[in-house]
Amino acid sequence: MKEQGAIQNDLLIRAARGEKTERSPVWVMRQAGRILPEYRAVRGSISGFKELVETPDLAAEVTVQPVDILGTDAAIIFSDILVIPDAMGLPYEMKEGVGPRFPRVIKTESDIDEMNVAQGQELKYVYDAISETRKRLAGRVPVIGFAGAPFTIFCYMIEGKGSKTFSEARKWLHANPKASHKLLEKITQSTINYLKLQVEAGVSIYQVFDSWAGVLSKELYQEFCMPYLNRIAQEVNSVPRIVFAKGAYFAMDDLMSSNYNVVGLDWGANIESARSLDSSKILQGNLDPTILYGQEDYIIRKTKEMLSSFSGGGHIANLGHGVYPDTDWRKVKLFIDTIKSS
Amino acid sequence: MKEQGAIQNDLLIRAARGEKTERSPVWVMRQAGRILPEYRAVRGSISGFKELVETPDLAAEVTVQPVDILGTDAAIIFSDILVIPDAMGLPYEMKEGVGPRFPRVIKTESDIDEMNVAQGQELKYVYDAISETRKRLAGRVPVIGFAGAPFTIFCYMIEGKGSKTFSEARKWLHANPKASHKLLEKITQSTINYLKLQVEAGVSIYQVFDSWAGVLSKELYQEFCMPYLNRIAQEVNSVPRIVFAKGAYFAMDDLMSSNYNVVGLDWGANIESARSLDSSKILQGNLDPTILYGQEDYIIRKTKEMLSSFSGGGHIANLGHGVYPDTDWRKVKLFIDTIKSS
Repeated sequence: MKEQGAIQNDLLIRAARGEKTERSPVWVMRQAGRILPEYRAVRGSISGFKELVETPDLAAEVTVQPVDILGTDAAIIFSDILVIPDAMGLPYEMKEGVGPRFPRVIKTESDIDEMNVAQGQELKYVYDAISETRKRLAGRVPVIGFAGAPFTIFCYMIEGKGSKTFSEARKWLHANPKASHKLLEKITQSTINYLKLQVEAGVSIYQVFDSWAGVLSKELYQEFCMPYLNRIAQEVNSVPRIVFAKGAYFAMDDLMSSNYNVVGLDWGANIESARSLDSSKILQGNLDPTILYGQEDYIIRKTKEMLSSFSGGGHIANLGHGVYPDTDWRKVKLFIDTIKSS
Repeated sequence: MKEQGAIQNDLLIRAARGEKTERSPVWVMRQAGRILPEYRAVRGSISGFKELVETPDLAAEVTVQPVDILGTDAAIIFSDILVIPDAMGLPYEMKEGVGPRFPRVIKTESDIDEMNVAQGQELKYVYDAISETRKRLAGRVPVIGFAGAPFTIFCYMIEGKGSKTFSEARKWLHANPKASHKLLEKITQSTINYLKLQVEAGVSIYQVFDSWAGVLSKELYQEFCMPYLNRIAQEVNSVPRIVFAKGAYFAMDDLMSSNYNVVGLDWGANIESARSLDSSKILQGNLDPTILYGQEDYIIRKTKEMLSSFSGGGHIANLGHGVYPDTDWRKVKLFIDTIKSS
């Protein structure tokens, strides 16, 4: 890890390490981008999303915006989980208003054999963006790194786009478990290499996003997800780590006993039952992002209720999902201000 | 209810009523259609999905096919949950390979005021299809009726199509709860009228599908879903009733204490914890439909494991979700045969 001066606001890192903090730190999934006019101005000045991800100066600029404008306790590096399949040999395209699309997908076992394990250096633009972000932040708040969980990346490499059921990806688990493990191994090793270099570039904490976890069952999650998630946390353990497996209510006990410091919860999760599994684990979340479509007093009330529902233990405030793109940024700021003044 | 001779195979009805049965009855969500070549032949002979739904002779034909070919213990009437918004004044279109689309959607509160409460007679073609199905079945197995849950219908009326987040629909719940209740009331009353006429036409049991329940939280589910679900079951109570709320793990206790006889589980649900809430409630489910992409011995093993996981109480065997369209029908039959010979 690069020499790093003390971070002025290190609330997030202390909370993630299990230290008692004066209040819950707050950041927002997808805070870097989508809702800010300042983001849209940068985005409008270039040809596409991928150019923004791959241009360190611009990625750093939109990474710092929410710290300046919304007052978050951390910056999350502006990037995409799909840089990993890209680095493994399966490039993605980001279609405006549609989402990611892969021109080629995994169809056969020999497609899996042809995938590279990413060494990490392929994604130099991410580390450069992290360095540039740190320079611009000058120690104000920590930088959060991130990656997709192996199963979520696996879903995209097979389906080539989002899906409500990911039945093609799930088909592989049942019809060809051995090949599925082979691909998950390659993704995991790529992710480890990638996160190690993010830490070297200066992220103080990272989050692993298992966005499509909810389409599995407990049994499949234990076979095809947890071992890979745990291996990542074990191999990249010099900074605190957060795991967020959306909709994976069936896996709560596995996640709570994982070697991640923090477990992210979506708005449907049961906070009490998570706490009862391990009261020392830090929980992150979980305001329903659609609450931010409500009136101001409603948002304040719901945010305070959310805070109080986490009061039994360590907590990092966040939404229960990424902020939706048509949310008024002033309401996101109201959410953040409410946390900070509580 | 029309005069009805004894049903020869009434396993499903007896199980749903809580009687001890010699084995778990079995049917499959979306069994009527999608996977059978015989269905595709009928579907190919006409202009579109909606014509099939609205032509009683053809709807009855594809309803009976899975009984004849797959050997299910019940026929579920071939129709669509979207006939309700259609009858309320919001017509749907079914786009092949894409899914449902509403040319108009609910945008303002006055759009809600303009919606009719369906009286039921608008959907005469459904009752005719039920009567014709009963004639063709000649008492072999019972006919299952169905409707969408009010919240799921609400989602479609607002979003106009499927969605991964249904954030527009959820926005209404937070930003305009009063108007949301007004629309949910109208949908609920329409659904009650509709299900009463289905029962009159001769369905022996019905299922309410809350397909998008999983996007909510416990709090929202209790406010915007359970009261309407319970009112339906209370008003249409002359036959046994099944509720299936996919992904609504947070609402398990509410569903288990609802006035539905049977609670359907998806493959991610925790059977043991459902049983512990009320061991007398009948559970339905829950094989992961992607297991049917596996090898034959794998399907048999997984089906037997599923059966044994439900052995602590009343059970109706089913998949945990509708059968996926690219499933080999012979593997669905293998699933059914395995249940029947267990």
